[in-house]
Amino acid sequence: MLDIKSFIADRVSLMESSEIREILELTEGKNVISLAGGLPDPKYFPTEELAEISAYVIKEYGARALQYSITRGLREFRKEIAAFMERTGTPGEMPYNIIVTSGSQQALNLLAQVLVNPGDIVVVEKPTYLAAINEFKSVGALFEGIPIDDDGMRTDILEERLKALKAEGKKVKVVYTVPTAQNPSGVSMSNERRSHLLELAEEYDFLIIEDDPYSHFMFEDVDFKRLRSMDKYRVIYTSTFSKILAPGLRLGWVAAHPEVIDALEIAKQNADLHTPTFNQLIATEALKRGVVDRHIPKVKEAYKKKRDAMLNALEEYMDGAAKWTKPVGGLFVFVYLDENIDTKEMLPAALSAGVAYVPGSAFYVDGSGRNTMRLNFSYPDEEEIRVGIERLSQVVKSYVRGSV
Amino acid sequence: MLDIKSFIADRVSLMESSEIREILELTEGKNVISLAGGLPDPKYFPTEELAEISAYVIKEYGARALQYSITRGLREFRKEIAAFMERTGTPGEMPYNIIVTSGSQQALNLLAQVLVNPGDIVVVEKPTYLAAINEFKSVGALFEGIPIDDDGMRTDILEERLKALKAEGKKVKVVYTVPTAQNPSGVSMSNERRSHLLELAEEYDFLIIEDDPYSHFMFEDVDFKRLRSMDKYRVIYTSTFSKILAPGLRLGWVAAHPEVIDALEIAKQNADLHTPTFNQLIATEALKRGVVDRHIPKVKEAYKKKRDAMLNALEEYMDGAAKWTKPVGGLFVFVYLDENIDTKEMLPAALSAGVAYVPGSAFYVDGSGRNTMRLNFSYPDEEEIRVGIERLSQVVKSYVRGSV
Repeated sequence: MLDIKSFIADRVSLMESSEIREILELTEGKNVISLAGGLPDPKYFPTEELAEISAYVIKEYGARALQYSITRGLREFRKEIAAFMERTGTPGEMPYNIIVTSGSQQALNLLAQVLVNPGDIVVVEKPTYLAAINEFKSVGALFEGIPIDDDGMRTDILEERLKALKAEGKKVKVVYTVPTAQNPSGVSMSNERRSHLLELAEEYDFLIIEDDPYSHFMFEDVDFKRLRSMDKYRVIYTSTFSKILAPGLRLGWVAAHPEVIDALEIAKQNADLHTPTFNQLIATEALKRGVVDRHIPKVKEAYKKKRDAMLNALEEYMDGAAKWTKPVGGLFVFVYLDENIDTKEMLPAALSAGVAYVPGSAFYVDGSGRNTMRLNFSYPDEEEIRVGIERLSQVVKSYVRGSV
Repeated sequence: MLDIKSFIADRVSLMESSEIREILELTEGKNVISLAGGLPDPKYFPTEELAEISAYVIKEYGARALQYSITRGLREFRKEIAAFMERTGTPGEMPYNIIVTSGSQQALNLLAQVLVNPGDIVVVEKPTYLAAINEFKSVGALFEGIPIDDDGMRTDILEERLKALKAEGKKVKVVYTVPTAQNPSGVSMSNERRSHLLELAEEYDFLIIEDDPYSHFMFEDVDFKRLRSMDKYRVIYTSTFSKILAPGLRLGWVAAHPEVIDALEIAKQNADLHTPTFNQLIATEALKRGVVDRHIPKVKEAYKKKRDAMLNALEEYMDGAAKWTKPVGGLFVFVYLDENIDTKEMLPAALSAGVAYVPGSAFYVDGSGRNTMRLNFSYPDEEEIRVGIERLSQVVKSYVRGSV
């Protein structure tokens, strides 16, 4: 008898299927308000402009738009990305510092492949972006989780851990951080801590991955410097067009030291040869025509209103039953419930009540965070946010009563 | 001092950079006729139709074309792929048998990840597609190379090897084959051998990867059945839109047993979340409107003429100095030179003479094939083919004289 399962390689079990995806599938087609995903609001996609640009790109560039192209990405696209970074606060990038990726998921996948040997120590925030955890786990990383507060990663605790690890003869290879409008918490690292982190990188000889999908959506007047703008050697920067243009094009990039870019290029060639030529030309044109730059403030304004709607709803319905972060930007609020509540166990009850969230433990590398959850405010509209939080509050309250 | 190289993980050295790519870079912008690549002729891209379809897709599907979508690919796209397979000789596929990939490079990358543990034995043709060698190598495969002749893989030799390996207590996990209009040789496996291969798969319990990018470009009236049409359990089928539509869209697919598809989905989620929604909708529409079906015979006719031009030029200029395959389809001729010639060493002389090829040893898993080369006829025009072969013949002849 043919046993297909016996043919599947061991490494597949290391690649955890995303819980978010499973939750999204559960909610599909049902009357559930999803606060679970991380989708941009499609209402704001510049569809008209992109339709026009798409036809233009094929007519203007002809066959070139449809032909194979080089692995690291079209030079004109990398030039436009460098210019975009320059005018948004991260000057000094050159096309040879940049590689185009198929979304930031691929950027993280390639960075994990290229930087982490099995057993290497990777530092992450606690909580941190769960897809990054999965990528590092699948290449055999060991984790150090560092707590966050309203000023982002507690670099003082990081320093203690670095000292302790050094005393044990251990070394941190990479610090992965979402310093600005973090996923899942929405908090930002203070500039003071950013400087401290870079000093530690120098002292303890590690590299930093700055994952930066959200910094263009800051709702408060927070002064922040991108780590990459402070150090072009130790900081590997990655971002995406998923939030500033459209995720369905699958475009991201990495800006880093050329030797890191060279290694990424080898890994990317193996992975998918190159990112679609056509999509790269569309984004190049969208950058050139100012579509991206005009799009950002519109979306920021909309997301700010939604964040306020969510914070107001939390205040109205969850006061006393939970604590939550006050996001200065981004797409998410992170909620801390009563210690006795397990949000993974509570999820079926929430789905029955017509609201979905992501259980927070997926964002913790050490199995903690069982009483937390991530709520998204970019996708639902303001009324859905209000109703969703109201439903959630009823679940939480009855759940507390039930479990006590 | 910061030593970036010391941070690069060991696995990067296992991912060999493609020699073809380096050769293409060497020839870029110079007066060199490249017979090295594997590019489709862009003259035949359906650019007008794709420009129209691109604008239509965004207008018709709106935000959906620009939003995230599910990892295994849009259902309507998988349905159209199944229908395309059905009307071209591989009936019986269902959407749940299919996963969309970012080109067939990603299909091979994910299949290697999902099927091969370090030390597993993978059988390949000798010669075989070099990117496949690199993918399997990078996950730690051991290789068995089986020679080919005009009827494809010598399954009688495969059977002998399977017996010998079994006697040593070893087992083959996967046979990777390009059975139809093979890369690099252009030969096709006879139906008799296909049946034999499937019998061996049953007897020795291995899976088969049928890599099938070229079967729509058969120039001779060769009767062939796709392996996938003969066995839906042991045969994993992969193909691509790169040759039947346009490579710049980066679209490929795998058709396989649902348990293989499930494992691929997990790996793909890690790799890049999903293939661009927009590109999938474009190809769906191109299939629906018959663009692909109308495109194939045009390209086939053009490539057939180019193949004839190359075979005629080889006859005219290389007779006596080399032997070569007579491709029944596909994009390539494979050339066997005098045993004393090392085509890798000869390459600089060829580039100086204004012609590029791929040294054949890259297509052999055992270090042999040093006197061979792969020539592409899909990209250059007929005059370039003639001049390219003439130049090549001069290099070969002077090289033989020089090295004897």
